[in-house]
Amino acid sequence: MKKHVIGVDIGGTNLRGAVVDSHGNVISRERIASDAHIGIDNLIRNLALLINKLRSDHDITGIGIGVPGILDSENGIITQAPNIRNAANFPIRKVLKNKISADIPIFIENDANCAALGEHAFGVGKNYSSLIMITLGTGVGGGMILNGRLWSGANGMGGEIGHIKIYPEGNKCNCGHRGCLESYASLSGLKIQIKKGIAENRINKSLISKINNTVEDKLPELLFAEAKNGNRFTKKLWEDFGTSLGIGISSITNLLNPEIVVVGGGIANAWQMFLPSLKQTVKDNTLTGPYKKLKISRSKLKDDAGILGAASLAMKQN
Amino acid sequence: MKKHVIGVDIGGTNLRGAVVDSHGNVISRERIASDAHIGIDNLIRNLALLINKLRSDHDITGIGIGVPGILDSENGIITQAPNIRNAANFPIRKVLKNKISADIPIFIENDANCAALGEHAFGVGKNYSSLIMITLGTGVGGGMILNGRLWSGANGMGGEIGHIKIYPEGNKCNCGHRGCLESYASLSGLKIQIKKGIAENRINKSLISKINNTVEDKLPELLFAEAKNGNRFTKKLWEDFGTSLGIGISSITNLLNPEIVVVGGGIANAWQMFLPSLKQTVKDNTLTGPYKKLKISRSKLKDDAGILGAASLAMKQN
Repeated sequence: MKKHVIGVDIGGTNLRGAVVDSHGNVISRERIASDAHIGIDNLIRNLALLINKLRSDHDITGIGIGVPGILDSENGIITQAPNIRNAANFPIRKVLKNKISADIPIFIENDANCAALGEHAFGVGKNYSSLIMITLGTGVGGGMILNGRLWSGANGMGGEIGHIKIYPEGNKCNCGHRGCLESYASLSGLKIQIKKGIAENRINKSLISKINNTVEDKLPELLFAEAKNGNRFTKKLWEDFGTSLGIGISSITNLLNPEIVVVGGGIANAWQMFLPSLKQTVKDNTLTGPYKKLKISRSKLKDDAGILGAASLAMKQN
Repeated sequence: MKKHVIGVDIGGTNLRGAVVDSHGNVISRERIASDAHIGIDNLIRNLALLINKLRSDHDITGIGIGVPGILDSENGIITQAPNIRNAANFPIRKVLKNKISADIPIFIENDANCAALGEHAFGVGKNYSSLIMITLGTGVGGGMILNGRLWSGANGMGGEIGHIKIYPEGNKCNCGHRGCLESYASLSGLKIQIKKGIAENRINKSLISKINNTVEDKLPELLFAEAKNGNRFTKKLWEDFGTSLGIGISSITNLLNPEIVVVGGGIANAWQMFLPSLKQTVKDNTLTGPYKKLKISRSKLKDDAGILGAASLAMKQN
C-alpha cells in the first residue's frame, strides 16, 4: 500500500478533504457539513468523521488541515477564528488526535496560506521560489512564499493582502479602516460599487431588479454574465475591479519583487473581464526590473488549492 | 592579532570604510572620495586604496561592500548602478580582488539592504527575526529581513519601499509613475510639497528666500529648524510627511506583519517633527493583530548602518 496523506479544508459551511499522493493527485475525496457556526465541538466531531472515512482504505502518514483563522501552527492551536464558534485558543491538534484515536501527525495552517502552499507545491507556482497568492472572495485573502518558504508574519498575521491601502481616503473597509484593497477587489467591494452606482443613477432598473433577486454568493456570477452581454455598468465595474487589483499588485511587486502572483478564489471566474485593466495598471505602476520578472496567473488548482496545500504540510515530514 | 572584517559603503561622493570586530565595534575608519561619477575604474582604484589602508594594521578575514545599485551578489557583479559611471554588468568582486592582491573573500550587497542587515545584526533590530528598514533621503530606500534572512526579491529588486502606492493619482514620482511613497516621504517629496505651497501662496516670502538660499542637501535641516520655531507651513509639511510615511508603513505591516520597522537616512533627523502624525496614521490604518506586534524605531546606527551591514556579510563565513 502506497503512502498517502490527507488534506482538509475547513470552510464556514463545509469540510472538504482528500487523500492525496506525493505528486498532488487526489486519490479520493469527501465533503460533509462543518457545523463551524454551531461550535468547535461539532466541528471536531465532523473533522474526525471525515478523516476516519478518508483513511479507512489508505495508509495515511500525515494529516494537514487548513483553518480559517489565526493560528499558532507550531503548537497546533487556533488563536482566533471568527467563523468557528468558541474556537479561540483551542488546541485543535491535541483534541483531534485523541478523537481519531490514531498516531498520525497532524499539521495546521491558515487556509489562505494553504492555498499559497498548494499552488506552490502542485499548481502554477510549481517552479518558482517566490509566490504571492491572492484569493478573491467575500474579502481578499492571501499567502506569501518567499525564498521557497511560507512567510506568515511575526505573529502569524502576515499576508493580509486585502488590507494594503490603495485609495487612503476611499471606500470604508470591513476592517474599519478606509481604502483597503478588499474594499474594492472583493464581493464586499463589488457591493459597495453597486450601491454607489444605484445612488448615482448609473444602473438601469432591470439590472437592479436582477441584482436584488440574486443571492449574495451568486452576485459575481451575475455581474460577469451581464458584462459579457455588453451591459455598460458591469463592464466598467470589472474594469475598475481590475484597476484596483492592479494597484495592489504593483505595490506588492515593487516591495517584494516576486516571481509569480497567483489569483484565485470564486471571483477569479470573472478573470477575462478584469484581466485587461489589471494588466494595464500593473504595467503602468510597476518598476521596470520587478515588472520584467513578474508573472501573473490565474489559480490552476482552484477549489483544491487549500486541500492540496494542507496535504503538502503533511508531506514534508515523510 | 584578533580576526576582523572590513565594511565599506560606496556613496556617490565618498567611500566610507571601517575595520569592524565580531561585535560590530568599529576599530578604525577611513573616508576618501569615491569618484563614482568619473567612472568605475576610478572607483575601483579608490576602493583598493581605502581597503589596503584599512587592512595594513589588521588581520582581515573578509570584506563586505554596500553598492548603490542592482547586483548579482552571488556572482559579485554590478548589474546596474545609475550613480556609478560605466558600472553596468561590471564584475566588481573579481576586478577588486586582483587590484588588492590579497586572497580575502569579498561580498557585495545593495546599500539599502546593507543598512537593513546592519540594524539587524548590531542596531535596534538585533533581537528580531523580521525587520523592515526604511531610509529617507533623496528617495526612499529599503531592505527587508524576513525569517532572519534578507529578502531582496526574485531578481534582486525587492525592497523598493519607496514605490508602494499611497495616493494612486497623486504626485508624479521620479520613477515616472504616480503616487509612490517616495513622491511624498523623501527630499523629492518635500520639494514637490514646497512647490505646491508656493503655487498656492501658502509660504511666506521670508521662508521662500531662505529655501532658495539653501543647498538641496541642507533643505530638510532648514525645514526642520523652521518647524521647530513654529512656522506653520513647515509644521504642516512634516505632519503630512508623517501621514504619508504612516500609510506606507500600514500597508507594509498589514502585508508582512514584521516585528520592527526601522527608519533611517538623513531625513530621519526630523523624527520628532513627523513622528506624531506617523504614529497616529499607523494606528488608524493597521489591523489590530499586526499592530500589536509592531515596533517602529529610529535607526540606531545612523550613518554606520551600511558599513556595519556590509561588515556583517563578511562575518557570516568566519
